[in-house]
Amino acid sequence: MTAQADTQGPDDRRILISVDAMGGDNGAEAVIAGMAKSAEKNPDIGYILHGPRAELEPLVARAGISERIHAWHDVSGVVTMEDKPSHVVRHGAGTSMWSAIDSVRDGEAKAAVSCGNTGALMAISTIRLRRLPGVNRPAIAILWPSLNPQGFNVMLDVGADVRADARDLLQFALMGASYARNGMNVPRPRIGLLNVGTEEHKGRPELKEAQALIARYAEIGRFDFVGFVEGSDLPGKTADVIVTDGFTGNVAIKTGEGTANMITDLLRESFKYSILSRFAALLALPALGRLKKRVDPRRVNGGVFLGLNGTVVKSHGKADATGVSAAIKLAFQLAQSGFAEKLAARVASVEELAQDGAELPEKPAGEHNEGQA
Amino acid sequence: MTAQADTQGPDDRRILISVDAMGGDNGAEAVIAGMAKSAEKNPDIGYILHGPRAELEPLVARAGISERIHAWHDVSGVVTMEDKPSHVVRHGAGTSMWSAIDSVRDGEAKAAVSCGNTGALMAISTIRLRRLPGVNRPAIAILWPSLNPQGFNVMLDVGADVRADARDLLQFALMGASYARNGMNVPRPRIGLLNVGTEEHKGRPELKEAQALIARYAEIGRFDFVGFVEGSDLPGKTADVIVTDGFTGNVAIKTGEGTANMITDLLRESFKYSILSRFAALLALPALGRLKKRVDPRRVNGGVFLGLNGTVVKSHGKADATGVSAAIKLAFQLAQSGFAEKLAARVASVEELAQDGAELPEKPAGEHNEGQA
Repeated sequence: MTAQADTQGPDDRRILISVDAMGGDNGAEAVIAGMAKSAEKNPDIGYILHGPRAELEPLVARAGISERIHAWHDVSGVVTMEDKPSHVVRHGAGTSMWSAIDSVRDGEAKAAVSCGNTGALMAISTIRLRRLPGVNRPAIAILWPSLNPQGFNVMLDVGADVRADARDLLQFALMGASYARNGMNVPRPRIGLLNVGTEEHKGRPELKEAQALIARYAEIGRFDFVGFVEGSDLPGKTADVIVTDGFTGNVAIKTGEGTANMITDLLRESFKYSILSRFAALLALPALGRLKKRVDPRRVNGGVFLGLNGTVVKSHGKADATGVSAAIKLAFQLAQSGFAEKLAARVASVEELAQDGAELPEKPAGEHNEGQA
Repeated sequence: MTAQADTQGPDDRRILISVDAMGGDNGAEAVIAGMAKSAEKNPDIGYILHGPRAELEPLVARAGISERIHAWHDVSGVVTMEDKPSHVVRHGAGTSMWSAIDSVRDGEAKAAVSCGNTGALMAISTIRLRRLPGVNRPAIAILWPSLNPQGFNVMLDVGADVRADARDLLQFALMGASYARNGMNVPRPRIGLLNVGTEEHKGRPELKEAQALIARYAEIGRFDFVGFVEGSDLPGKTADVIVTDGFTGNVAIKTGEGTANMITDLLRESFKYSILSRFAALLALPALGRLKKRVDPRRVNGGVFLGLNGTVVKSHGKADATGVSAAIKLAFQLAQSGFAEKLAARVASVEELAQDGAELPEKPAGEHNEGQA
C-alpha cells in the first residue's frame, strides 16, 4: 500500500488522465493497449497510472508509451467485481481504483477512467470527490446509438440506484443537458422524461411532479423540455437526453443491448443458411460493417458520473483496447472543455435560485452564452 | 346503444372468439381482414362480432366470412385511444369494447380480442370479469423474441401499472408459468425476476422479498426459479418467463422494440450506400427475410390479460391483418386449452395454501400432472 509518485517532468500542454489499470475483465493488458491507442491519436494526452508498477512497467514499455506516463502510483490492492461497495468504502484505500480517484481529488489529473466494479467506483468517487452542493444523488450517464443527427442520445441515470424523486430527476435533467452540450456539442438539448406513455395522466406520482418541475427550469438549464417520452424514444429522434431513475435506466439499456445482440446473432445465423446466403453475406460485408460501426457499443463506451466534484468515466468491464480508448477519449474531451467546473457552476446557480424561492425568469440573462455549461 | 344478438346456429365444434371490431388505429377493415386470415387457416374458429352492424356487415361479406359470424352485437359506441380508463369505466357501456368483454362474462364466447386502448380494455375487463380470488393486480403478459428453443420468452407485467409488491410479483410468476405451459408448451418454465444485477444484494427491497417468496412457491407452481435476471436476459436463454412490475416491463419492451427498429432502419440505410451494396441487398433478401420473420413483432402480437375470470387478448393498436390474426390465434389456443379454468385452479390452490399458513411441501402430490395449469 505504498503510493509513490514518480513525476517525469510533464509537458505543460498535456491534459492528464488518471487511469486505474486493474479490475477490468481483460486485465491490465487491455487497459494499457487502450491507453496506447488514445496516445497515438492524440498528442495532448498524458497519463497518471495506478496499479502494481513492477507488473505494469513492462506492459507500458512494450506498448511504447513510457514517455506518456507523467506519474506512477504504485499500489498493489485491486477492487474485484465481487466486492461489495460498502466493503470497498471501508477497506479500499491502497487499491488502484481508490488511488485513481484520489488523483482527481488532489488536482493531479483532470479526469479518471476505470474498467472496474461500477458500484464500488461510484461509492469511492462519492466519498472521495464528494457531491456537488445541492446534488442528492449522483448519476451515471451513457451515450446510446440513436437516429438523431449527432448519432447518439444521452440517458441517465443508468446506475442502478433504486429510486429517484422529482428533485433528483430535475438534477438529472440539468446535468444531462450540460453533458450533452459539452460532450456532444448539442447547444440546446431536448430533454425527455421516461414514462409508460406520453399522456400527462400516466405514470408514477413523482414523474408527474418532475414533469412540472423540469418544465419550470428549462430556460435556466438552457434546454427544451419535450415532456414524457417512452422506451421507443431512447434510440429515436424525439429527445437528445432521456431522464429516468437508475433502476429503470439500467433495465432499459440492458434490454436494448440484449435485443441488439440477439438480432446480430440471428442475422449471422440467417446468412449461414445456404451457399447462396453465404455468398450474399460476403457481398453484404461492407454494408454490415457500416451498420456495426454505427451501433458498436465499444464506440460509445463510457458511463460518466455526474454530480461530483470531478470527472469520472466508467468503462465497460469487458472493454477491449478499442473500448478503453473510447472511454479515455471521452474523459479527455470532458477535461478539455472544463466540464466539471461548468457543471458545478450550473448546478450552483440553479440551487441558489431554488433557495431564494425566486420567481423563475422566462429568459434569464446570459442564457445564450455558449461558453457556459 | 342496442345490443341485439342474432345467433345463426353455431356449429358445436367451433370455439367462439369475441372480437371488438372498433378502436384500432387501422379501423374495422384491418380487424375483419385478420379475422378472415384466421378463419381461412382454422375451420374450428367462430366469431361473435361487436360494433355497428350496418357498417361491418358489408366488410364481413366482402371478406367472405359471413358464415363464421355466430352472433352480431350491434353497438354504436367506440372507445378511442384518448379516452381515460376512469371515464370509460363510468360511461363505456354501449361501446364495442364493453360488449366484447361481456360476451366472455356471459359465457357466450371463450375469449375476447380487442385492438383498442389498453388502459380502457384493462379497466373494463377488470370490472366486468372481476379478478380471480387472491389476485390483487391483474397483469399483461407478452411474448418476446428470444434465443430459447421455443423462439419466445414471456414477460409480465408490461401493463404500465405503476407498482407491484412482492406478493404481486409472486402472482405474476405463478400466472406467467401457467401461461408458458398452456400458450407455449413449455412444461416446466424457468422463471427469472428482473433486476439491475444478479447478485442477491442488489435492487429494491420488494425484489429481495419477492425473490425469497417465489423460490418457496417453485414446486407448487411447477416452475424452476432462476433468481434475478437482467434486461439482457429478456431476449436471452436464461429464463422462459421474466417477471417485473408493469412500469419497468413497459419501458423495457418499448426500448427493445425501438432498438430493433433502429437497427432495421440503419441496415436498410447501409444497403442503400452504393451500387454494390444494393446488389448485395438483393442477394441477401432471403436471409434478411428469415431474420425478419423470426423477430417480426406482428407474429407475436397479443398481450394476454392474466388474473381475471376469462381470457382477454390485447392486440397492438397498429396491427394489420397479420397482427390481428396472430392475436386471434393466441386467443383460440388459450380457449382451446381451457387456460382460464386451469389458471383459476392454480391460483386458488396456492391461495388456499397461503391462507392455511401451511408449511409448503417440497414436492406436492400431483405436481407432475401435465394436465394442470
